[in-house]
Amino acid sequence: MTLSEIQIYLKKHKVDAYFLPRNNMFLEEDILEEENEIFSLTGFSGSAASLVICQDKTYLFTDGRYELQSKMETNPQEVEIICSSADFPYLWLQNHFESGKFSLMYNPWTISAGTISKFTDMFPKAKLICDEKNILETKLSSKKAHVFSLSEEYAGITAEEKIAEILPILKQNDIDAYLLTSANEVSWLMNLRSDALPDSPILRAFALIKKDGSVTLFADNTDKADILPMSKLEKSLKAVKKGKLGVDKKNMPQMICEIFGAKNLRDIGDIIRDKQILKNEIELEGYIKAHRQDAVAMIKFLYWLDNNYKGKTELDIVAKIDSLRAEQDLFISKSFDTIAATGSNGAIVHYHPSENTNKVLERNSVLLLDSGGHYQDGTTDITRTIALGIPKQKIVDANTIVLKSHIALASSIFPKGTTGVALDALCRKELWKESMDFKHGTGHGVGFVLNVHEAPRISPQAKNSHFYKNMVTSIEPGYYKENDYGIRIENLYYTQECANSDMLKFEVLTLVPLDKRLINKYLLSEDEIKWVDEYHQKVLEIMSPYLDAKHKEWLEDACAPL
Amino acid sequence: MTLSEIQIYLKKHKVDAYFLPRNNMFLEEDILEEENEIFSLTGFSGSAASLVICQDKTYLFTDGRYELQSKMETNPQEVEIICSSADFPYLWLQNHFESGKFSLMYNPWTISAGTISKFTDMFPKAKLICDEKNILETKLSSKKAHVFSLSEEYAGITAEEKIAEILPILKQNDIDAYLLTSANEVSWLMNLRSDALPDSPILRAFALIKKDGSVTLFADNTDKADILPMSKLEKSLKAVKKGKLGVDKKNMPQMICEIFGAKNLRDIGDIIRDKQILKNEIELEGYIKAHRQDAVAMIKFLYWLDNNYKGKTELDIVAKIDSLRAEQDLFISKSFDTIAATGSNGAIVHYHPSENTNKVLERNSVLLLDSGGHYQDGTTDITRTIALGIPKQKIVDANTIVLKSHIALASSIFPKGTTGVALDALCRKELWKESMDFKHGTGHGVGFVLNVHEAPRISPQAKNSHFYKNMVTSIEPGYYKENDYGIRIENLYYTQECANSDMLKFEVLTLVPLDKRLINKYLLSEDEIKWVDEYHQKVLEIMSPYLDAKHKEWLEDACAPL
Repeated sequence: MTLSEIQIYLKKHKVDAYFLPRNNMFLEEDILEEENEIFSLTGFSGSAASLVICQDKTYLFTDGRYELQSKMETNPQEVEIICSSADFPYLWLQNHFESGKFSLMYNPWTISAGTISKFTDMFPKAKLICDEKNILETKLSSKKAHVFSLSEEYAGITAEEKIAEILPILKQNDIDAYLLTSANEVSWLMNLRSDALPDSPILRAFALIKKDGSVTLFADNTDKADILPMSKLEKSLKAVKKGKLGVDKKNMPQMICEIFGAKNLRDIGDIIRDKQILKNEIELEGYIKAHRQDAVAMIKFLYWLDNNYKGKTELDIVAKIDSLRAEQDLFISKSFDTIAATGSNGAIVHYHPSENTNKVLERNSVLLLDSGGHYQDGTTDITRTIALGIPKQKIVDANTIVLKSHIALASSIFPKGTTGVALDALCRKELWKESMDFKHGTGHGVGFVLNVHEAPRISPQAKNSHFYKNMVTSIEPGYYKENDYGIRIENLYYTQECANSDMLKFEVLTLVPLDKRLINKYLLSEDEIKWVDEYHQKVLEIMSPYLDAKHKEWLEDACAPL
Repeated sequence: MTLSEIQIYLKKHKVDAYFLPRNNMFLEEDILEEENEIFSLTGFSGSAASLVICQDKTYLFTDGRYELQSKMETNPQEVEIICSSADFPYLWLQNHFESGKFSLMYNPWTISAGTISKFTDMFPKAKLICDEKNILETKLSSKKAHVFSLSEEYAGITAEEKIAEILPILKQNDIDAYLLTSANEVSWLMNLRSDALPDSPILRAFALIKKDGSVTLFADNTDKADILPMSKLEKSLKAVKKGKLGVDKKNMPQMICEIFGAKNLRDIGDIIRDKQILKNEIELEGYIKAHRQDAVAMIKFLYWLDNNYKGKTELDIVAKIDSLRAEQDLFISKSFDTIAATGSNGAIVHYHPSENTNKVLERNSVLLLDSGGHYQDGTTDITRTIALGIPKQKIVDANTIVLKSHIALASSIFPKGTTGVALDALCRKELWKESMDFKHGTGHGVGFVLNVHEAPRISPQAKNSHFYKNMVTSIEPGYYKENDYGIRIENLYYTQECANSDMLKFEVLTLVPLDKRLINKYLLSEDEIKWVDEYHQKVLEIMSPYLDAKHKEWLEDACAPL
């Protein structure tokens, strides 16, 4: 259906609006373009989106990162962009339907039960209509996915050991089974991966974990024989006694409530995430090794760029870094779609070059390159902002302030349990001092050969992200000047205990030099200069043995003290 | 009743536990000693407390500030201290009554409807028993309070204007009346104050605001003729149509639900607070003037202390500063019970000296003095840590780190809407760096001749406190070394817009020198030294005209550059 066909349907059936989040049944960020209903209806391709289709107008909700892009990709006659957050637009609905009396249609597979609950609490007079006829169907690619195991050598712990660790939670809550609907967590628990998605090797499946330790997986279109088709889910769930099926209501599709009856479910929250985001020692070793491989690709790329940037386009850059990464041992795939943006494209926070937008690299400006890879032994995510020619002083100064922000958080020491909101402020403080800021999170957890974005988060909203030992996170402050340039400096770190106290600190994983041509030394404190020099010294020491003479020589230059 | 009598009652009536927060019907921090049921049952006098009386044991919940004090004041045979937070102990109950099947008695006047709701959600199998027989009665002092008006000259806006500003909220929510149960907010709205409490000039009353703009006040034991007795509340509420009475369920006593029927109430949240904590220009002018008066008292005190500390006790200190403050124009009362703590008493965060604990000032240590006043034109709250003799270097260094923390937040620039969690981190960062921390909030809003503690908060928990222009807040980091010493540095500030941007900054209200004998200049950065020198220069310039020759001379010394 097109937007106007849906609107005709809504008018005919006297439904005020259709709410459509950018989801498939796994309610996670990574979905295929062919599965993205919002993209096919509006043209907007960003990763944060939800749509409210009213009878005479359509509203697209997204966040600050996509302010510019959403305007470029959609038709303003058809779609009004509301740029605050891509979450369910409770407040907007409250204002739009002032009386509180309105009807809202939803697809039970693509909306979480938590959203439905909150909606019901907030709008007692509204009517929710389940889209049983599937006028907006749940799209899931029909391509057969290859499923593979992650060996214990890399995963550190077997699936059996992981399952054994969570069984006591089932017992404690007196339930017979737990339904896990997060593909990221299913993949982690079972040490299984697949090639269903180009940039995220997760197995897109649900798992029904029984108290005897047996696990049944449900997924369509895979090559693994013992995975049941999704059509068998209903029967399997109904075999569990009422009141004895545990779920994480907030993050599971509303459909599970429709199948099993909301009152018969036991909401015990997410029982996997807190374990999954505390990386084990083998996983951490893997991240360290994968980051060395990744640094080889990045250093070769930076060397190449310095000597070849003239006349190259953003798409040339993407092709080059993607191919250098693909040469590395144990490489599986990119960890997300590479962002290469020059000049004003850099100000579009999550810009990906396409044939339509592709630009020749701008001289005397910067290239913003955000990329990463999944390797058998770990996942990477790095952003470097790189000088092309001789960038203007204002860009150098802005880059230096962003660097100060990065260092402020990367070098901080903080107690166990500190929230992502607190860490976010430590980072932004240096930008705020100059009346600068950026409209995206400061950091995100990085899955182990899973989704590149996972918990914990570092952002003004991350009040429920608490930091403990052995978490892997990005630190990625930025600054974006509309129609001019964009800057972001991103490294990955893992949290470790300080030697002589109970506090935590960040240990760096990413080993790629920062562009010194973009650093105004006179804006840095002595401690900040020391941080940069020590980081570069570390990069040089660790990475030199992996490089041939010409790259090594380049690295020595790049890592010389400020 | 005594604890053991209550326990006998519980056993007889097969009730598992009685939950008792430290509240009267106004659910605010300031209550009289004679109203403090927890104090009369256990001896604990701290301002953060709740009690769970089980059949065979009593559990006292308090927070980190009262860790030492609660142990000193209670009988360990009778009371077990649980030092995490004084909030309703949901998690503790969950662990203590594992099956979820238990009965809990409460007094509907002293517990919030919000707590009861959350309890019911969390413990569907538990039984709540309303203490209708008043076995633990609601104590409210029978002393007749004098009620007085705050003139428009100081309040800035008349009660009529304030009421007119909130009537649209009633209309918008389609309600006929709103019941306000916060005494702090009633006092603000009506520009009324009273002498019911020694340190907080609030009028302890409920207000029923009707949509025609008429307001009825309810309170017992006042000398104001048009205030109705609390016994009339039920009848007045019942005169409002069902579904047309608005309340703030979270912060009102459960009793209102019992009277009016929970389902008949319209929970529209707190409609006053957001207006009350944004100070008007006249109020801000008042705060500025009151802080000058207050600084005169403090400077005279510091001069006196330097020349007279030998042999003096903590209670002598309290008497001296309280009397100096009382001499000031427009003085109403202290704004809280003065804290004067020397040596190891300083490590007890909210220590108040008594005949039992009173100490002679320790030589070569520090005095921690936390005090403040209500004046007709504003409220103050200041903490200074003062050298007695020649304190050990470790104390000087610790004081310097606390000062760095204070400066870090006081000099920060941040966007509108920044949360108290974010600001808290900016302050603690300098302490964390040295593996130091403190177990209390970093700051609190200060009521205008109202409760000295109000919204917004600056703390790791203050995720719902958002900062905007014209808020008055304390910044008060500290450091406490058990059995040794305590340090806290507190100034009040108000938030203002930066000159050339949309960001906010703090403007200082407090004008009293910091003790330079406790500052190790070599631990400060150039910017920090500049901050201290500029602050002292400002204190000297503004305060000199208010002082006689000897105090002026002392101040010149105290404010000389580092």
